[in-house]
Amino acid sequence: MAENVQAPVNKTAHAFDKGRLESMLSTRFFYAPAFEIYRGVAGLYDYGPPGSSLQANILAEWRKHFIIEEHMLELDTTILTPATVFETSGHVARFADWMVKDIKTGDVLRADHLVKNVLEARIAGDKEARGQAVRVVEDEKNKKKKKAKPVKLLDEVVAEYERILAQLDNYSGPELGQLLRDHNITNSDTGNAVSEPQLFNLMFASSIGPTGQHPGYLRPETAQGHFLNFSRLLEFNNRRVPFASAQIGRSFRNEISPRAGLLRVREFTMAEIEHYVDPENKRHERFHEVRDVELDLLDRHVQSSGHTTITRISIGEAVDKGIVANETLGYFLVRIYLFLIKIGINPKRLRFRQHMSNEMAHYATDCWDAEIENSTGWTECVGCADRAAYDLTVHSAKTGHPLVVQEELKEPIVTEKLVVGYDRKTLGKTLGKGFAIIQSVVGGMNEAELLNLKGQLAQGSAVIVSPEGQQFKLTPDTLSIEWKTFTQSVREYTPNVIEPSFGIGRILYTLLEHSFWSREQDVDRGVLSLPPIIAPTKVLIVPLSPRDEFKPLVREVSAKLRKAGVFSNVDDSNQTIGKRYARNDELGTPFGLTIDFASISKRTMTLRERDTTIQLIGDIDEVIPIVIELVNGSMDWPEACQRLSIYEGVQSLE
Amino acid sequence: MAENVQAPVNKTAHAFDKGRLESMLSTRFFYAPAFEIYRGVAGLYDYGPPGSSLQANILAEWRKHFIIEEHMLELDTTILTPATVFETSGHVARFADWMVKDIKTGDVLRADHLVKNVLEARIAGDKEARGQAVRVVEDEKNKKKKKAKPVKLLDEVVAEYERILAQLDNYSGPELGQLLRDHNITNSDTGNAVSEPQLFNLMFASSIGPTGQHPGYLRPETAQGHFLNFSRLLEFNNRRVPFASAQIGRSFRNEISPRAGLLRVREFTMAEIEHYVDPENKRHERFHEVRDVELDLLDRHVQSSGHTTITRISIGEAVDKGIVANETLGYFLVRIYLFLIKIGINPKRLRFRQHMSNEMAHYATDCWDAEIENSTGWTECVGCADRAAYDLTVHSAKTGHPLVVQEELKEPIVTEKLVVGYDRKTLGKTLGKGFAIIQSVVGGMNEAELLNLKGQLAQGSAVIVSPEGQQFKLTPDTLSIEWKTFTQSVREYTPNVIEPSFGIGRILYTLLEHSFWSREQDVDRGVLSLPPIIAPTKVLIVPLSPRDEFKPLVREVSAKLRKAGVFSNVDDSNQTIGKRYARNDELGTPFGLTIDFASISKRTMTLRERDTTIQLIGDIDEVIPIVIELVNGSMDWPEACQRLSIYEGVQSLE
Repeated sequence: MAENVQAPVNKTAHAFDKGRLESMLSTRFFYAPAFEIYRGVAGLYDYGPPGSSLQANILAEWRKHFIIEEHMLELDTTILTPATVFETSGHVARFADWMVKDIKTGDVLRADHLVKNVLEARIAGDKEARGQAVRVVEDEKNKKKKKAKPVKLLDEVVAEYERILAQLDNYSGPELGQLLRDHNITNSDTGNAVSEPQLFNLMFASSIGPTGQHPGYLRPETAQGHFLNFSRLLEFNNRRVPFASAQIGRSFRNEISPRAGLLRVREFTMAEIEHYVDPENKRHERFHEVRDVELDLLDRHVQSSGHTTITRISIGEAVDKGIVANETLGYFLVRIYLFLIKIGINPKRLRFRQHMSNEMAHYATDCWDAEIENSTGWTECVGCADRAAYDLTVHSAKTGHPLVVQEELKEPIVTEKLVVGYDRKTLGKTLGKGFAIIQSVVGGMNEAELLNLKGQLAQGSAVIVSPEGQQFKLTPDTLSIEWKTFTQSVREYTPNVIEPSFGIGRILYTLLEHSFWSREQDVDRGVLSLPPIIAPTKVLIVPLSPRDEFKPLVREVSAKLRKAGVFSNVDDSNQTIGKRYARNDELGTPFGLTIDFASISKRTMTLRERDTTIQLIGDIDEVIPIVIELVNGSMDWPEACQRLSIYEGVQSLE
Repeated sequence: MAENVQAPVNKTAHAFDKGRLESMLSTRFFYAPAFEIYRGVAGLYDYGPPGSSLQANILAEWRKHFIIEEHMLELDTTILTPATVFETSGHVARFADWMVKDIKTGDVLRADHLVKNVLEARIAGDKEARGQAVRVVEDEKNKKKKKAKPVKLLDEVVAEYERILAQLDNYSGPELGQLLRDHNITNSDTGNAVSEPQLFNLMFASSIGPTGQHPGYLRPETAQGHFLNFSRLLEFNNRRVPFASAQIGRSFRNEISPRAGLLRVREFTMAEIEHYVDPENKRHERFHEVRDVELDLLDRHVQSSGHTTITRISIGEAVDKGIVANETLGYFLVRIYLFLIKIGINPKRLRFRQHMSNEMAHYATDCWDAEIENSTGWTECVGCADRAAYDLTVHSAKTGHPLVVQEELKEPIVTEKLVVGYDRKTLGKTLGKGFAIIQSVVGGMNEAELLNLKGQLAQGSAVIVSPEGQQFKLTPDTLSIEWKTFTQSVREYTPNVIEPSFGIGRILYTLLEHSFWSREQDVDRGVLSLPPIIAPTKVLIVPLSPRDEFKPLVREVSAKLRKAGVFSNVDDSNQTIGKRYARNDELGTPFGLTIDFASISKRTMTLRERDTTIQLIGDIDEVIPIVIELVNGSMDWPEACQRLSIYEGVQSLE
């Protein structure tokens, strides 16, 4: 039937151009700096209609993939949090970054970012001096391409820089200060020296109540809201473990100098899961379903040795070899991977990097980040930490409220123990303080010693000696030693927590980069190849003109799509059909339906696919169910091409 | 087929008991005080799994009813806001409540609430003294029923109190102070006198950036985020007006003494619409669809005269009579009404109350609240304000960024005007300063005077006289007066804004009150009759026991429901089926499917309806599509009863 329908589309005819993407995202109002007409505040962004819708669709898919699929318990807890909670959790003392100040201007910079930017620029300058290809370094502040100075470095200096960069996240504040001095690093904006690194707490403070009596913070993560409700959640889950709670919500971090668009912001939407497991059994009952999935891993040992070599390995093997600590952690790494691929992240630009020991958050015992490559490098988009029993333990200790699991043992643990019985009346009366000494000595005996004593008593009497040499004679009527049976039917423990934590804005922005390309024949015609499940609008309905005669058909098609739960938009503006489609290519709308005079006379309608721009034609009642299946993912484009005819009039419309 | 299936269920056998409802909501973790194990902070609540899910379903329905149905542009803007924005919007100066302090303890109280509580208690005490039925007054702080002191009042005092209460929202701070003195009102918790009312700003303050350079606030409403993006929204909408933006998000108000559970909290989810209209044309193109819908209205004139009499009137008539100012405002009142009814609010306990002049927010020119009656009285749950051009005007003036609509006129406005032409060279040279006087005098003439002057000049010359009596002789060669044609093709205006603003938590709580009742035979068996569209879980699947033989069928039924988009839960705990259903009646789950031995041997399954507890039975493949239709609302229960047989074993299971 249809020929050439799978003609390859060349999405790489033009090199990725970040400026072009950002300009398009701004024009189409995916997002924009908040308070733009007030000249904005760094690190705060508003999402416009397509951005809001894209975010809502990513979150809806997240809810399906995690909450519904795994029967997690959803929560919605408050952002405002009394200070005492974050004092207990350790955030007041330790949720901080190292900052330096320009000693002349007072400008504040993040110490690790400064080291990274300067050393990367020097390496780039060295490559240029050696005549090698240089990857463009993005200067986030000025949004210009920074040209590195071509200065050749000694080979060992380049090697040293690369070693530092590979483990940059592992340095303490004083170590960063040493690096700044050793390598003569100054503020690259001004050339001025910078101060010693100082800790800066990243939480926003406020106070609750009319008299300022309750100091508080805006939460920097949603996690504490889960932990404080642990007892209620456990009860809701019929006291069964393992289970997980999940929450989607806003969090806040007062970043020192946010400069990277949506990648580093002060207010952001997170999606967090807290999965509670028995610390003695971190197996996962669905691990067998994911065992053979292969991931790109970068473990802490490779990084600490100054390298960034990826290992591609199945999660089953990674857990067997102890690279990934346990099945539950491994299960979630795969689930994260599958989610990111499903919404359109390029799997070749996705890796899992293990945190090095100094890099780990204060509450974590192990952590793997899903890092996605984009124009600024590899960016942490999802963290997957094993918080162990840290949080539940500290909150329980502080409040006195037990945050534990009481597990009824299927088979009670039965133990036999030697139990000592005293004739307290007689011994107390006859020996006075001596009785306490006897109790202390006998109480300190191990099983063998008790058995020995029991044997002596069975023969009539025994003598015991205190550490000071005092002797006491004992008889079976004053002291008995017997075997007794103990049955333990409940085991009490503080569960461990595995926490997958998603930065939705970072994922959203990176996805936009991965989806963006320009048409081969015209670099100004941008396209966002978003998968239908997350595209802001699924179907664009384009009447040839805004004339009244097309309106009944437009209404009919809209209503049928809406009934099937497919969200469509109508563009009946005065622009040419080609321009209207070009606008919707930029908005990532995967399918278009054109209603023209033939639709009225013959009830035909064309169906356009965004990436190929190929149009198919068929009867309206035939096209509608096909477009519904395409949107729902139960049919793919090649199959649609088998079902409908190619429409050859396409070029004249574009 | 099925008999008695519509046997009436008596939902009013037991009087509403707020304590019983609250205890049930806490046990089932709909919501709980945030930071409960730290003894909580007033006015902050966390939603557990059923509460989160109920809220998410209300919001999903809201999105369908408003955003999708009306093609609104969705936004997601930041909570953190620089101070300058709220200085411009007037919130720093005026977004405040009047508070009084207990002069001995320093406790802080809201002045209007204090007056209300004390006068209502006195009226109740009077009724009791007169032997009349007393409606129980809820003491929000102590969550106990407060017994009013039986003190008889003079008839005129009761009338005076009722007059004050009817217009309580209309008093200024000094007027509230006067009321406190005139009526000897003291802090009812302590009996101490209170201070003069003082203004307290309700916004939470913070500061943005590492050096505290940007003072900021947490937004008290989402609206400013819409207004600041107006230009981008207008552009996105192809520069067409009217259109609306919509946003769902968290807002914050530092309430003085929050005591009313979810009804008055410091952090809450709002859903706000800003509908932009031409100030000269507030008609609405879909008004005819809602004209005949009748609403209960309480207008400002009735209240100002000290009454609370409701008028039931169609919105068409209310707009025609000028009770509701315009079609757009009227259209939204009906849409709000329809939304609230759809999610389960009792229409008999819903009214629309107009704000009195002193009560209105500083930005509003007219405002109607959807008030819903609950155990604390009538509570504002949705506000619908006409903000006129206030916000766009002040932000535009402050920033210099035009926030206007430029409307291309379909028919340009053509006007003829008399235009004066001077021979500037000659007049300037010969008359010097006199020329300026001539320009001033001629420039001040109206059309009739100009025509007169033109006539004199046509006859050769004219003399004009300055206000000081100076005379100037003019000739046609130095001054000409001609008719000229002017064409205006663009009209520029600042749109007006109609704002429906929903407090989701208040709606959610009130809905829980309206949905709650106890079974006639057992007051301890609570039921939440939530409509299927918003119930947290739609279908409960109950295998007779957790035995393995039921599992394949449970999986099959779950999978088929999930494929149809119906969210079910499985309860395979060890409790009796009756107990499991009772738990799910409390959770508001509308339908239950029981899988028993007959399901395995004969593939039958029973379908239970929550309110009636009636069970129907049929083949599994017959029951599943019926339950899907019941959940989606395309079938009602009586119809299901026609399609399946009554299962008579029901009582034995309960």
